[in-house]
Amino acid sequence: MLIGAVEAGGTKFVCGIGNEAGEVLDRVSFPTEQPEKTLAQVVAYFRDKQVEAIGIGSFGPINIDRGSPLYGYVTTTPKPGWGNYPVLPELRKAVDVPIGWDTDVNAAALGEATWGAAKGLDSCLYYTIGTGIGVGVFAEGSLVHGLVHPEGGHVLTRRHPNDTYEGKCPYHGDCLEGMAAGPALEARWKVKGGDLPADHPAWEMEAFYIGQALANAILLLSPKRIILGGGVMHQVQLFPLIREQVRSNLKGYVSAAALADGIDDYIVPPGLGDNAGLSGSIALGLRALREAQ
Amino acid sequence: MLIGAVEAGGTKFVCGIGNEAGEVLDRVSFPTEQPEKTLAQVVAYFRDKQVEAIGIGSFGPINIDRGSPLYGYVTTTPKPGWGNYPVLPELRKAVDVPIGWDTDVNAAALGEATWGAAKGLDSCLYYTIGTGIGVGVFAEGSLVHGLVHPEGGHVLTRRHPNDTYEGKCPYHGDCLEGMAAGPALEARWKVKGGDLPADHPAWEMEAFYIGQALANAILLLSPKRIILGGGVMHQVQLFPLIREQVRSNLKGYVSAAALADGIDDYIVPPGLGDNAGLSGSIALGLRALREAQ
Repeated sequence: MLIGAVEAGGTKFVCGIGNEAGEVLDRVSFPTEQPEKTLAQVVAYFRDKQVEAIGIGSFGPINIDRGSPLYGYVTTTPKPGWGNYPVLPELRKAVDVPIGWDTDVNAAALGEATWGAAKGLDSCLYYTIGTGIGVGVFAEGSLVHGLVHPEGGHVLTRRHPNDTYEGKCPYHGDCLEGMAAGPALEARWKVKGGDLPADHPAWEMEAFYIGQALANAILLLSPKRIILGGGVMHQVQLFPLIREQVRSNLKGYVSAAALADGIDDYIVPPGLGDNAGLSGSIALGLRALREAQ
Repeated sequence: MLIGAVEAGGTKFVCGIGNEAGEVLDRVSFPTEQPEKTLAQVVAYFRDKQVEAIGIGSFGPINIDRGSPLYGYVTTTPKPGWGNYPVLPELRKAVDVPIGWDTDVNAAALGEATWGAAKGLDSCLYYTIGTGIGVGVFAEGSLVHGLVHPEGGHVLTRRHPNDTYEGKCPYHGDCLEGMAAGPALEARWKVKGGDLPADHPAWEMEAFYIGQALANAILLLSPKRIILGGGVMHQVQLFPLIREQVRSNLKGYVSAAALADGIDDYIVPPGLGDNAGLSGSIALGLRALREAQ
C-alpha cells in the first residue's frame, strides 16, 4: 500500500511516497512559491503515484478544526500569498483520496509515536528547534488541537543571568523562539550557530532556555517522552546540557525514573532522523485512510 | 441512578452522593487523619447508600497508571501515613462497585467539561489556586495522565519586577505555587489574602504570575477554556486582571476570538461553583460505570 506525504514548509515543500511501515520510498523537494504554483507541483507529483491516501503536515498557523468552514486553510501567516489560503480544499479538488491534515510538528509527533523514538507510547512532545521553534503535542493517544493548535515555541522563559540579547521574536521579543531559535543564536553571537565550537558558552545558554521550557512542559503535561529535532539540535552536545537543565529546574519534584536515571532515554533525538516530518505525514495519511474506511 | 463521590483532600475528605445529571444530593465532610481511619469513614458513609459506582478525585501525587502494580496509590506525599498508601486497593476490598480514580483537579476538569463551565467542549484546563496550585488537563476528550500526571502548579514564571519575596515552594522556591498560592500571598504581605482590600497592589502582582502561567499553557496546549477555582479565586477582582495579563503576554500571537473580545468567556470561574470537586468525582464514577458495563 502506498501513502503520499507532504511536508509543507514555509521555505520548501517535500513530497514523498511511503508505505504502512512508515518507510519513505521516494521524495522530491521544491521551494515554496505562490500557493497556486506550489500546489500544482504537489498535484503533478502525485498524479501517477497511485497513493491510497495523502497526509499533509503544514507550516502554520493553520485551521485544523474539522467543524470549521475554514478547515484546511493556512490562516494568519505573513508569508505572501498564503494568508487565508485554502490548501486542503484546493488539493481535494485535484486529488480523489482521503487527505489527512495537521501541523508539521503534530505530524512529526505522530510519526515518532508510530514508528520512531516514542513508538508504542500514548504520549510525547515533538519540538523542532531551527529557524523557528514549534511543538507537536500527542497526549492520551491523540494529537492535541484545542482552540487553535499548540504554539509552544513562544512560551515565556526566564532570562539567563548573563544574557543581554533582547530577543528576536517580532511578537514577544524574548520568548523561547526569540531567545533560542537559530536566528537568535546567530544574532546574539554574531556568527552562525553551526560555526560555534561545541564547547562555546552559547550552548550552555541555549540549553538554559530549552531546558526551562521542557521542565515547564513536563510539569503541565507529563509527556512520556520528549523528542528534540530541527537544525539546532544537530548540535548533539546540547542533549546532555538540556537534560541537566531539566533536572535542575524540576529539583526532584516529579518522582519518575524517566526524569532521574532514565533521562537519557526520555529527552532524545528523533528516531526517524530527518525523515521525521515526511514519515509523520505518512502517518497522517494512514490515519485519514482508516477514518475513511 | 446514584453515584458516590469522594473529594479526597489533604486536609479534609468530602463524600457525597449524586445523580447522572451531576447534581449533589448529599454530602458529608471530615478531617483527613491516618488513612485507615479516614477510609473506614468513607466506607461507613457509603455502606447504606446503594451507589452504582464511586468516583474519587484525590490529592497527590498519586499513581493513575492502570498498568502499574501501584495503580490507585497515593505516592510521594509528605503527609504522615499517606506516603505509598494503597487508597484505591483498600477501598476495593470494602466496596463492590466500579471505582473511578484520578487527581482532584482532573476530576474537577471532567466535571466542568460534563456539566459546568466547559460543558460540551472537548478540552479545558482547571486550575485550583488555594493552599497550593494544581491543574487538571482535559484534552481531545481525555483526561491527561502521561508519565505521572500534570503538576502545572509548579511551573516557573518570570518574577514581577517589584516583587522581592523569595517564594514559598519547598522544592522550587519561586515557582507559580511558591509565588501565587494562598500561603505565598500571606507571607509576602504579612496578612491573609482574604483581608487585603480588592484594590490592594497584591492582586495585580497575583494576576501577573497567574496570567503568565495561563499564557504559557495556552501556547503549549491551546485549551478551549480555562477555569480558575480555589480559595484565592474567590477574590473575583482577579479575573479581569488575569485576563489582561494573558492578553498582554500573548501579544495577539494566537489568533482566536476567544483570546480577544471573547476572553471574558474564556477565562472563567467554575460553573459548578464549590461543587466542582464533588461533581467531578461523580463524573469519574459515571465513567467507571460505563467502562465496567
